[in-house]
Amino acid sequence: MMKLDGLVDIVGADHVLVGEQTAPYVTDWRGRFSGKALAVVRPGSTAEVAAVVRWANEQRLPLLPQGGNTSLCGGATPSVEPVLILSLLRLNQIRSIDTANDTIVVEAGCILQQVQDYAAAHQRLFPLSLAAEGSCTIGGNLATNAGGTQVLRYGNARDLALGLEVVTADGQIWHGLRGLRKDNTGYDLCSLFIGSEGTLGIITAATLKLYPVPVAQNTALVAVRSLEAAAQLLSLARQGFDAGLTAFEVMAHNCLEAVVQCFPEQRLAFSGEAAQAPWFVLIELSDNESELHARQRLEEVLGQALEQDLALDVIIAENTRQSQELWHLRESIPLAEKVLGKSVKHDIGVPVSEVADFVTQTNAQIQAAYPGVEHVIFGHLGDGNLHYNVAKGRYTEAEVLSFEKAIYKIVFDQLQRVQGTLSAEHGIGQLKRDWLVLYQDPVELALMRQIKQALDPLNLMNPGKLLADSLPK
Amino acid sequence: MMKLDGLVDIVGADHVLVGEQTAPYVTDWRGRFSGKALAVVRPGSTAEVAAVVRWANEQRLPLLPQGGNTSLCGGATPSVEPVLILSLLRLNQIRSIDTANDTIVVEAGCILQQVQDYAAAHQRLFPLSLAAEGSCTIGGNLATNAGGTQVLRYGNARDLALGLEVVTADGQIWHGLRGLRKDNTGYDLCSLFIGSEGTLGIITAATLKLYPVPVAQNTALVAVRSLEAAAQLLSLARQGFDAGLTAFEVMAHNCLEAVVQCFPEQRLAFSGEAAQAPWFVLIELSDNESELHARQRLEEVLGQALEQDLALDVIIAENTRQSQELWHLRESIPLAEKVLGKSVKHDIGVPVSEVADFVTQTNAQIQAAYPGVEHVIFGHLGDGNLHYNVAKGRYTEAEVLSFEKAIYKIVFDQLQRVQGTLSAEHGIGQLKRDWLVLYQDPVELALMRQIKQALDPLNLMNPGKLLADSLPK
Repeated sequence: MMKLDGLVDIVGADHVLVGEQTAPYVTDWRGRFSGKALAVVRPGSTAEVAAVVRWANEQRLPLLPQGGNTSLCGGATPSVEPVLILSLLRLNQIRSIDTANDTIVVEAGCILQQVQDYAAAHQRLFPLSLAAEGSCTIGGNLATNAGGTQVLRYGNARDLALGLEVVTADGQIWHGLRGLRKDNTGYDLCSLFIGSEGTLGIITAATLKLYPVPVAQNTALVAVRSLEAAAQLLSLARQGFDAGLTAFEVMAHNCLEAVVQCFPEQRLAFSGEAAQAPWFVLIELSDNESELHARQRLEEVLGQALEQDLALDVIIAENTRQSQELWHLRESIPLAEKVLGKSVKHDIGVPVSEVADFVTQTNAQIQAAYPGVEHVIFGHLGDGNLHYNVAKGRYTEAEVLSFEKAIYKIVFDQLQRVQGTLSAEHGIGQLKRDWLVLYQDPVELALMRQIKQALDPLNLMNPGKLLADSLPK
Repeated sequence: MMKLDGLVDIVGADHVLVGEQTAPYVTDWRGRFSGKALAVVRPGSTAEVAAVVRWANEQRLPLLPQGGNTSLCGGATPSVEPVLILSLLRLNQIRSIDTANDTIVVEAGCILQQVQDYAAAHQRLFPLSLAAEGSCTIGGNLATNAGGTQVLRYGNARDLALGLEVVTADGQIWHGLRGLRKDNTGYDLCSLFIGSEGTLGIITAATLKLYPVPVAQNTALVAVRSLEAAAQLLSLARQGFDAGLTAFEVMAHNCLEAVVQCFPEQRLAFSGEAAQAPWFVLIELSDNESELHARQRLEEVLGQALEQDLALDVIIAENTRQSQELWHLRESIPLAEKVLGKSVKHDIGVPVSEVADFVTQTNAQIQAAYPGVEHVIFGHLGDGNLHYNVAKGRYTEAEVLSFEKAIYKIVFDQLQRVQGTLSAEHGIGQLKRDWLVLYQDPVELALMRQIKQALDPLNLMNPGKLLADSLPK
C-alpha cells in the first residue's frame, strides 16, 4: 500500500481517513454507487488542497473531489482504483459579502443552505434552490452546474457565479475570484470549470451573485387539457410576468393522484372537468411591490388564460400558507412515486416547443415496446426540463428495471430527434458516461477530450467520470 | 505569392478578393489599426467555411475571421503577415425562429439590427443593443462577448446564446445549435468560444435567447451629489425594480456640460443645486403592465431616494419623447467628447462597491502625475463598467496622448488593487494584448495558453490577438 505520510504532513493525521473511516465517503447517498478509496483527505485551506494535488501528482494518484456527496449520477463516488478522495467539507467559510456589489465569496465546502441563510440575513437572495440544499455544497453545485426550481428566473449555478478560485490539475492556484458583471479579458475559464464535474481541476471558492429578496410571492395551480396548452400558457405567463415568473412546473394527473393517495392530508382542490385534467401547472410569481399586487397580476394574467381557453380552471393561493400547500403538492411527487414503484428515471431537456410532441411520440414508442408501463412525468416546463420516468404499471419492479437500457435507448433516440439533452440538470457522472459517447456530437466530444488532455494531461482529476476514456494513465 | 486556386475552387472567383479589393477589410472602422491580407475570402456557407479552414491548414496559412469590422481594439484587423481574412458577411441568414421556445437561430454574418428587427416582427425582444448595431455582426458580438446598454437586465452576449455552430481550427464542424435552457452534458464549449476573439475557432451560427417585449419603458434622470450616492441609489433601484431595471448609467457633470455645449438643442432641465451636481444617473425601468404603472413605480422608488437624500433632484419622463430626450443626453457623450479633445480611453470594470474609491484614488494619482488633465467619466454603473477617459485639459491633444502608456499603468495598477478588469466590454484584440500579460493572473494566462494550444495547435486562428504569444508557427 502506498505510504500516506506525505498527506499527513500536509493536513495532519486527523484529516487522513483510511479503512472503515472512509465508509461515508465511498457510497453515494442513495446507495446506488459504491467504490473504494485509498484514503479520504480533508484539507483545511486552499493551500492545503494545492499541496495535496501536487503530492498526488508526484504519486500519479487519481483524485476524486467531493462535496456533500449528493450526486444523482455517481459523480462523487469512486469508480476506479486506486483513488484518493479529496473532501472539501472543511473549506466551509463564507469569506465575505458585498451588498453594494451584490456578491458573496464562499468556499467550496459551504452548504448551499448556509449560503442562502447568510444572504438572507443580509437582505439578499442567493437564488439557487434544490432538494438537497441542506447537505449539498457550493463546490458540488458548481462542479455539476446545478439547476433546481428557480432556473427560469435566475439561471443555473453557472449563471450565478462571477469568479472562481481553482486548484489546477498540477496543483497551482488560480486566483479568479473577481466579482465583475462584465469582464472581457480572455477565455471564460469560470464557465469551463463549472459543470466539468471535477475532471479539470478543483473549485475551492467562488464569487456568487446576489439578488434583491422579492417583496411578495404568490402561487397558482392551473388545470390544463394538454401539454400544448401548458406550453401556450407558459408564453402567456412570460409575456405577462417577464422576470417575475420564478417557477413554471408541470405535473401529470397521475403524479398528483399519487401524492393525494400517499399523503391524505394533501388535496387537489379542483372539481368537475378540471379535477380530471391530464396536466396541472404550478406557477409562482415573485413581485417587488406587494402581496396585493402579486395577487392582482396573477388574477389578471390567468384570467386571460381562462378567456383564451388555455386553462380549464385556476386556483390562486389566498395567502402564504396556501402557496406552501400548492408547492407541497409538487414537492411531494418524488416521495409519492414510491406508491407507483421504482421506475426508469430520466432528467431530460427539450425545447419547450417540442415538449408535447416529444412526450406523445416517446410514450407511444415505449407503450409499443412495453404495453402497460406507467408514465410518470413532471418537471420544470419553464426550462423544458422534464423528469420523464417510466414506472412498472402492470409489470413488477424488477421487470421494469430490466427494461432500463431499452427504454433509455428509445428516450435518447427521441431526444436526438428534437435536439434535446439526456441530462438537463444532474450531469453525467458514471451513470450516463457511456451513453454520452453514443449520443453527443463527435466533434463536441473531440473538443472536450482535447480540453481534458490540455488541462489534466495525467488524467488524475475525477477519473472515470463524464468522459468515458478519461481513465488514469 | 501563394496560389489561391484552392480558395477559388471552394468559394468561386467572385469571393476571393485581392489587392485593392481588400482595402475595406484591412483597416478598422476608426482607422486606428491597419494591416495587410494575402486575400479576403467570403464563403457562402458553413461547409465552405470549413473547406477554407482545411485549405488554410494545408497551407499553414493564418486566418482572421471578420464580421462587421467594428472592433474597438483591433481584434479584426491583420497584425501579422501573411494572413487570410475570412469574412462571414455572406452567412447572413436567419435560419429559424421558435417563439414557443423563445429562441432564434441566426448565422454569424447577420447584422445585429437585422436580428433585433426580426425578433420584433415576431413580438419578441432580442436584447443585445450597442452603438454599432447597424453594422456589427452576431458573429463578432459573440466572438467578443459584446455588452452594451442592457447587460444589467439581460447579460452579455454570452448570456444570450444557448448554442453554437463552430468550425474548429482544423476545419471540422461542431453542430452545437441546441436551444436548451438546461444542458449538463459536459464542458461549456459555447462559453469558451464566445469571447475567444476568433482565436479558437470560427462561430458560423448561434441559437440565441428571446424575451418578451416590455409593455412600457420609462426613464428618469437623477442628480446625485457623489458616486457613493449613485451606488446607494443603484441598490435602492435594484430592490425596487428588480429585473425591471434595464439601465443605470452614470455621467459626470462635465460630460453633460459638453453635450449641451456641443448640441445646443439639448438641455439639462435641472435648476439650482441639482444643475451643478457632480454626477447624474439615467435610470430606465421596463414594465410588463403599462405606461402608467411604470411611471408610478419610478415616482415611488425615486421618491424614496429623495427622502433618503440619495438624490438631489429627479426628472421623470412624461412620455416617450421625453424618455428619448433623456437617453439622447447619454448617447451624445461620445460625440460631445470631441469638444474636450482626443483622450486616453478606458473600458474598465470594477465592483460597484469600489467605483467611488477607484475614481477618487485614480483621479488623484493621475492629477499628481499630470496636473490639469480633464477626467471624462461615464458608463454603465449598474454593471460596474466605466468609460474612464482622460482628456487634455490644459495640455495639447498630442501631449495627453503621449501620456497614454503612463496613464494606462496608473489605471491598471488601481484596477488590480480593487480586483477590476482592464477590459469590461471591448475585449483585448491587439490593443491590450501586451498589457494583459502584465496584469492577468499568471495561472489564468497559463490555462488560456493550454486551451489555445489544445484547440489550435498550429496557431492559425486570429494570430496576434488576445494572447501575446499566439503567433503562427
